[in-house]
Amino acid sequence: MKSDIQIAQEAKMESIKNIAEKLGLYEDDLEYYGKYKCKISLNVYDKLKNKEDGKLVLVTAINPTPAGEGKSTVTVGLGQALNKMGKNAVIALREPSLGPVFGIKGGAAGGGYAQVVPMEDINLHFTGDMHAITSANNLLSAAIDNHIHQGNVLRIDSRRIIFKRVIDMNDRALRKIIVGMGGKINGFVREDGFTITVASEIMAILCLATNLEDLKNRMGNILVAYDLDGNPVYAKQLEIQGAMALLMKDAIKPNLVQTLENTPALIHGGPFANIAHGCNSIMATKLALKLGDIAITEAGFGADLGAEKFFDIKCRYGDLKPSCVVIVATIRALKHHGGVTKNELNTPNVEALKEGVANLEKQIENIKKFNVEAVVAINKFITDSDEEIKFIKDFCDKLGVKVALSDVWAKGGEGGRELGEIVLDILEKDNSDFKVIYDIDKTIEEKVLTIAKEIYGADSVTYSNDAKKQINELVKFGLDKLPICMAKTQYSLSDNPNLLAKPKGFSITVQEVRVSNGAGFIVVQTGNIMTMPGLPKVPAANKMDVLNDGEIIGLF
Amino acid sequence: MKSDIQIAQEAKMESIKNIAEKLGLYEDDLEYYGKYKCKISLNVYDKLKNKEDGKLVLVTAINPTPAGEGKSTVTVGLGQALNKMGKNAVIALREPSLGPVFGIKGGAAGGGYAQVVPMEDINLHFTGDMHAITSANNLLSAAIDNHIHQGNVLRIDSRRIIFKRVIDMNDRALRKIIVGMGGKINGFVREDGFTITVASEIMAILCLATNLEDLKNRMGNILVAYDLDGNPVYAKQLEIQGAMALLMKDAIKPNLVQTLENTPALIHGGPFANIAHGCNSIMATKLALKLGDIAITEAGFGADLGAEKFFDIKCRYGDLKPSCVVIVATIRALKHHGGVTKNELNTPNVEALKEGVANLEKQIENIKKFNVEAVVAINKFITDSDEEIKFIKDFCDKLGVKVALSDVWAKGGEGGRELGEIVLDILEKDNSDFKVIYDIDKTIEEKVLTIAKEIYGADSVTYSNDAKKQINELVKFGLDKLPICMAKTQYSLSDNPNLLAKPKGFSITVQEVRVSNGAGFIVVQTGNIMTMPGLPKVPAANKMDVLNDGEIIGLF
Repeated sequence: MKSDIQIAQEAKMESIKNIAEKLGLYEDDLEYYGKYKCKISLNVYDKLKNKEDGKLVLVTAINPTPAGEGKSTVTVGLGQALNKMGKNAVIALREPSLGPVFGIKGGAAGGGYAQVVPMEDINLHFTGDMHAITSANNLLSAAIDNHIHQGNVLRIDSRRIIFKRVIDMNDRALRKIIVGMGGKINGFVREDGFTITVASEIMAILCLATNLEDLKNRMGNILVAYDLDGNPVYAKQLEIQGAMALLMKDAIKPNLVQTLENTPALIHGGPFANIAHGCNSIMATKLALKLGDIAITEAGFGADLGAEKFFDIKCRYGDLKPSCVVIVATIRALKHHGGVTKNELNTPNVEALKEGVANLEKQIENIKKFNVEAVVAINKFITDSDEEIKFIKDFCDKLGVKVALSDVWAKGGEGGRELGEIVLDILEKDNSDFKVIYDIDKTIEEKVLTIAKEIYGADSVTYSNDAKKQINELVKFGLDKLPICMAKTQYSLSDNPNLLAKPKGFSITVQEVRVSNGAGFIVVQTGNIMTMPGLPKVPAANKMDVLNDGEIIGLF
Repeated sequence: MKSDIQIAQEAKMESIKNIAEKLGLYEDDLEYYGKYKCKISLNVYDKLKNKEDGKLVLVTAINPTPAGEGKSTVTVGLGQALNKMGKNAVIALREPSLGPVFGIKGGAAGGGYAQVVPMEDINLHFTGDMHAITSANNLLSAAIDNHIHQGNVLRIDSRRIIFKRVIDMNDRALRKIIVGMGGKINGFVREDGFTITVASEIMAILCLATNLEDLKNRMGNILVAYDLDGNPVYAKQLEIQGAMALLMKDAIKPNLVQTLENTPALIHGGPFANIAHGCNSIMATKLALKLGDIAITEAGFGADLGAEKFFDIKCRYGDLKPSCVVIVATIRALKHHGGVTKNELNTPNVEALKEGVANLEKQIENIKKFNVEAVVAINKFITDSDEEIKFIKDFCDKLGVKVALSDVWAKGGEGGRELGEIVLDILEKDNSDFKVIYDIDKTIEEKVLTIAKEIYGADSVTYSNDAKKQINELVKFGLDKLPICMAKTQYSLSDNPNLLAKPKGFSITVQEVRVSNGAGFIVVQTGNIMTMPGLPKVPAANKMDVLNDGEIIGLF
């Protein structure tokens, strides 16, 4: 069996010029990065502003399991299928982070015969967006320490600097550091830490900004610290948002690549799915809607986190109206939700499936709360039994939800025709009438309670004392009328990763509440979120190499 | 008077495709980064391997002064002049560092009507080389701390880790830090620090490597630490050089841009001129020699540091044979060497010039020691008096060295014809027979003494106790048979920045000696070298902006 990189390297890529031309984009609309990647110039937005938008399809999933669901693979495969069926579909995906590539296994985008290429580039430096974010972030950090060193006119409290430095690397030693050692010439000593670049608020801002001016304003609005009187200090008070925007002037432009079957794919932005909202940029999604009759995008983690934040944060800010949601599941993963251990997942077990399918049921129910039509995609595995497949089909039938088997991993677009037909049918009937599920003018507690009850199925929400204090502070400074960004385990509908399928009778416990004022959301943490991964004992990096003839070894 | 960025933005750039075509490079030889930048594929080296090399011209200078000499400007202007005169000249320059752009004033490359463009891009992310170096460096750093955390099989002494993290930012707070705080999950606590990316040994390696395999081997040979028994630990023992090379697979390819007059310029690599050798990459210089009949390159600081290291390190490793050296001076700078204060530099003063010209005389004498023909370029200022100009011309006449007035800043290539004629004459006569001035198999002390006596005009060299210990250690581990990389003040021929013109009767004091074993040289420090700049009270960043229409404000 061929590995993902083998399949990717055997792909017959078209020049990105050709891919772009099919979308009506020409020389002046493009900035090439080699032969197979380009950025799309911002003037294209103006050029297309009167063109009608296509239809928006979101691909999401049940709560993830170690068995794997293949959400990105289905996203890419559906795009390929629709193009095979003569439709003009454009994919919009997140950019992978460079750091984890050297850890256990890289980001990748799709798998098997449903991948975006050139995958080596996409997984390494790509077009430099992550580096631009890293630079902009660290310029702001340098400006903070420099301000304090040069006299601290703003009276920044060095004990209360919230904004951290970033690096696009898995590096546990940088999680908690002390900076400014070595005496007067090196500034004031204080505690600091690095997070991984994709966890930067700047990344979330890039993904929620609708143009360069908006990006700049949001960066200026970042709450970086409190002063010695306890008042907020924003980035703009350091007069640095212009230089940060300058560093981001190319990063804001969406990147165009292609799939193995030459379907156009915009890959742009990739914020964390816990402390941020986990979707590609609004600018790329909007562009996909202009360039394609159908735009297919995805959101991180399962639908309880990913789709909810896609709807309530991204669609709200981007004024997007999704028409169809694909919920990806596998029979193996649903059996895992039914209590089957990893080693037993290959054995047919309809009883476990009956238990586990409750997770899928709840996600379907949730999507309906946003008034969007849903379809289930069962990502096929060779071990799925006919009986198991029939059970799922019957189950969805009873719920009145269509279900399709997806075999895009093995067959590419051809394996996604069944799903493609259903999606087209939904788009044609056009029964969706998207709405968000809470009003941002409600209190933080009301908003969180709505999400917890409606989406997670919780009975209640409790707050730590810290969280209560933090909420009071946000209210005091008028920073509470923003959408909520839940940071919760992705493995369960609850905040306990061990409660699978559809847990009942639980409460959500909020540990910490803080504002990402530039991005424009309030992060509500229900546990410790690790924002800087570490390397394993034998990092994947140890097996990687590149030969003099350019051959790449060990990357996936 | 127009600013550099105004002139640059008014330039009529040709598409980089056209520039490349004139050099005989086509589609398959190029990787575009937008319309005006490209990388040159490594297969071009193979394609051109039987083509005869052009002639190599080095542009260097007297010891720098606050008055400014304009070395890069002359380099660019000379390239423009030779092309105007119908010659095929290719320029090879260093890449500026992103960090300082936000400090006092950016790197830039040339000035006035002798600049390389697009200067905004060149001074910001360019083609991502700096970011690739940063990533490769920090991957190695993460691997070191991870190795210790995961059991420390190599028994790395965490008190003796030499290899530091890097960031491409002026950030004094990161000079000296403590990492690994926060308990067991974050690894072991130790002292560390960040240097600016251009000070990374990886940057020096990129500039001295002759192909990807060589790059990888050199990165594997970096001395990263000592173990608990005091033995050296190299990067390759962490099995990380393959992944580092993978991160550098595009950074190793030279970048092609153009000057304001569409002269081709390769801009590639930019190591520090003190703790490293301060020249652009060997790969770019070799390519310039294949693509041009004349290749024009420069070296950092004055000739005592820059040209010496260019000859003894870069030319030695790259097997390069320079045919001509241009020594740039200004009448203002020579008057500064003659003791005139900054405010008085605009007043004609032949007496001061008579004093200061000794600096130029010594640099000319030094170039002759390498058996290379020299020409003096006087970079013209409006305040230069006829009498002063006549004095310099007569002085050089007596030394048997040609001198040209250069007016490329105000007039572009047209202002460099006089210099161009002399350079062409030297290249035609071909009297140079380049040799290095020391044998690497000599002891460290012998090599340093040769440089100090022959080049600086010192009487002797003394060593601190630390330096003596460090030399003994390098000898013990067989790490001493390498070229010397002097780190000395650039303002004087001596190691005292206040001794101008041509000091006599002084001794050089060596404070520290350490090996950059991957780069392949021994750094001999004669004072404290700052490898991480800080931001000033009002950073240049505060005035920078980019508008929605793409207009850039405040970048120079």
